[in-house]
Amino acid sequence: MPELLPLLDEPSPERADASRNRQAILAAALRLVQAHGVEEVTMDAVASAAGVGKGTLFRRFASREGLMAAVLNQSEIEWQTSVISGPPPLGPGAPALARLLAFGHSRLRLNLDHGALIRAAGASGARSVAAASFASMHVRHLLGELGVRGDLPLLASSLLAPLEVPIVEQQVHGEQMGLERISAGWDDLVRRVVRAD
Amino acid sequence: MPELLPLLDEPSPERADASRNRQAILAAALRLVQAHGVEEVTMDAVASAAGVGKGTLFRRFASREGLMAAVLNQSEIEWQTSVISGPPPLGPGAPALARLLAFGHSRLRLNLDHGALIRAAGASGARSVAAASFASMHVRHLLGELGVRGDLPLLASSLLAPLEVPIVEQQVHGEQMGLERISAGWDDLVRRVVRAD
Repeated sequence: MPELLPLLDEPSPERADASRNRQAILAAALRLVQAHGVEEVTMDAVASAAGVGKGTLFRRFASREGLMAAVLNQSEIEWQTSVISGPPPLGPGAPALARLLAFGHSRLRLNLDHGALIRAAGASGARSVAAASFASMHVRHLLGELGVRGDLPLLASSLLAPLEVPIVEQQVHGEQMGLERISAGWDDLVRRVVRAD
Repeated sequence: MPELLPLLDEPSPERADASRNRQAILAAALRLVQAHGVEEVTMDAVASAAGVGKGTLFRRFASREGLMAAVLNQSEIEWQTSVISGPPPLGPGAPALARLLAFGHSRLRLNLDHGALIRAAGASGARSVAAASFASMHVRHLLGELGVRGDLPLLASSLLAPLEVPIVEQQVHGEQMGLERISAGWDDLVRRVVRAD
């Protein structure tokens, strides 16, 4: 029997190692950011928490901005995963309205966390079009399940707009509104939009 | 009879002249921006259209960024004036729902024009908190007239969010949606919100 050739998409042991390394760094950085806030997290602290040298950190991410952009991306991916396949009501298995409300609450909290990350990521911090499309398609899908008729892409965009980072930051930091009040306001908006059909 | 003292808030002839000068420059710059787009408008063109020297322009506004920030502010003030005291349905005299819809359409168009001005104004281009408050209070007032109950500041914020510059620019330039479609989508949103009470 001939020796098996390695499959094309099977990473070499070296690459698999680098990838594990990268995941460990991102996980450590995200934990630190969530625990202490972006401003408090230094490259030294991330290197130490991930058990790698500071040189490795800079080799992989070029700069603190580069690392924060990767952390932002990682956080977005984890959130998308919990929407697609996490426990209900954010994930599948709950009624569409409960899912939509859970989506808004969790997006609101995520965006508030992401404000500081976006700034720390500098020029690379603009949220990707792919991330925006995901949120839009999810909301559209749930509106469809709820029997809402009309221009669903635009309605989805209208429901997502109040959750955007600058708006939520202005409400929380500028107008001293609490997250509970903002969540309740979003629920009211959604219920009004859905009830109209 | 003693000679009348000048009233405190009566500008000296010199100051009145400078103010007229400033208004003429802003009016000329705004006309040029509306006719040709921000990118095409040079300091030379503004000086020539306003009938002043280029030196005067730089003395009054320091830089092209400074001029564009002043134009942005002027455009915002003119728009507010038309909401407060212009002809209906944007101004007073029309039913509240008609006013609210006219407000959205005109704000949408204004924000799309303002995107380029905000970028050209650089660091001074952030829309003032005062301008945001004006829009919010106006929408709140109309929602109240329409008998909408609930957290009106938050509902107003939710209705204004989809009209914000980055969102409208993404819809128009990123997703190739026409202004008519976006206006119709906003109407639908407003009617759903209002109908629920």
